[in-house]
Amino acid sequence: MKPRILEVRTKILKKNDEIARDLRARFAQQSVFVINVVSSSGAGKTELLARLMTELTAQGLQVGAVVGDLATENDAERLAASGCPAQQILTGTMCHLEADMVESALTPFDKTDILFIENVGNLVCPQSFDLGEDLGVLLFPSTEGEDKPQNYPTLINTCDLVLFSKMDIAAAVDFDIDLARRNCAQARPGVATLETSARTGAGLSELADLLVQRCNAKRAAKVQTPA
Amino acid sequence: MKPRILEVRTKILKKNDEIARDLRARFAQQSVFVINVVSSSGAGKTELLARLMTELTAQGLQVGAVVGDLATENDAERLAASGCPAQQILTGTMCHLEADMVESALTPFDKTDILFIENVGNLVCPQSFDLGEDLGVLLFPSTEGEDKPQNYPTLINTCDLVLFSKMDIAAAVDFDIDLARRNCAQARPGVATLETSARTGAGLSELADLLVQRCNAKRAAKVQTPA
Repeated sequence: MKPRILEVRTKILKKNDEIARDLRARFAQQSVFVINVVSSSGAGKTELLARLMTELTAQGLQVGAVVGDLATENDAERLAASGCPAQQILTGTMCHLEADMVESALTPFDKTDILFIENVGNLVCPQSFDLGEDLGVLLFPSTEGEDKPQNYPTLINTCDLVLFSKMDIAAAVDFDIDLARRNCAQARPGVATLETSARTGAGLSELADLLVQRCNAKRAAKVQTPA
Repeated sequence: MKPRILEVRTKILKKNDEIARDLRARFAQQSVFVINVVSSSGAGKTELLARLMTELTAQGLQVGAVVGDLATENDAERLAASGCPAQQILTGTMCHLEADMVESALTPFDKTDILFIENVGNLVCPQSFDLGEDLGVLLFPSTEGEDKPQNYPTLINTCDLVLFSKMDIAAAVDFDIDLARRNCAQARPGVATLETSARTGAGLSELADLLVQRCNAKRAAKVQTPA
């Protein structure tokens, strides 16, 4: 990378980090728990989130989503079918979300307990852009092979939770879950993992419980340390 | 996008296009037919190419590959198992291949009939970077849903051939091939499509025949219009 390009890239990232810091302060002040969901395209983010949002709403939580896509509002429409507010961010030719895009989409989410940010399907670039989230979640579908953590180490190194998705067809695609777990642990020792299927619903109530726990822990921490 | 950023991006793309033009001239002079293979990560590029390269070698062609990945040489090793030369390009944090990376990896491929460039798994950024290829091939796996052409229109708009991959598990994931074909045709009217499975070998001999035809057509055109 040439020096001048590097300088510009550094500036973009610095500006992003400043906006992300403001977002994080705003989310803390409003007690919104924010989850940045990343994966390759077609990993099943939207389907899983739609079911998860329905599950969390049934537990009495206020849930919302912003979703980044290049060109269509299909994913926001699919998420809105859960009955929750969902805001589409059209990124044009941008392969990731940046903090200012999230900021500009936030107005409808002020009373939200849990806000999902569904990133653009891409295993590389989203890693560089902090969105002010509390939790980074990586979807790792059974259909993509066991070697993703080694071939795309950047994202797993910034995520807190790996969801093995599409586990209902794991046997049909000869997915070796033990090898996939070992590869995740090697790329990021100690990372939490959970097996899920948006189609059968497997793992979704455990996932909902985990998120509610984290959301409550954030609130408890706020009560203990008032600004 | 800010004006200064836009200016830098334009410069990067212009430099890339100049190198790509040189590459294209070199490939023409050496009668190498070059195929740029793009898809999301985990779409099965490497497995399909390994089988395809074996098929083409059995037909007496000299075949080679360069493959872009962020961090490991696993894919080059898998392709080399076909007995063909395969060169890994490690891109670090770059989410796509650029023409100068391909140029630097070319030495072993001077006597090649067909050279595959397996791009980094990413449905967005590779579109912006011409690699001097003759044919752009997009893999569209049955596992990623039918809406990819609309959600990620950039790549399909620069590709010449869509391969529906992982068709052996299409039924297990309720993939609607007719809808997928209509979505492809809507995004890029007239684009060629072919159903394949690297696991069963379905579609691979048709694909090999198609590539050999195109390769021969390039040579015939060269004979008719000497430099």
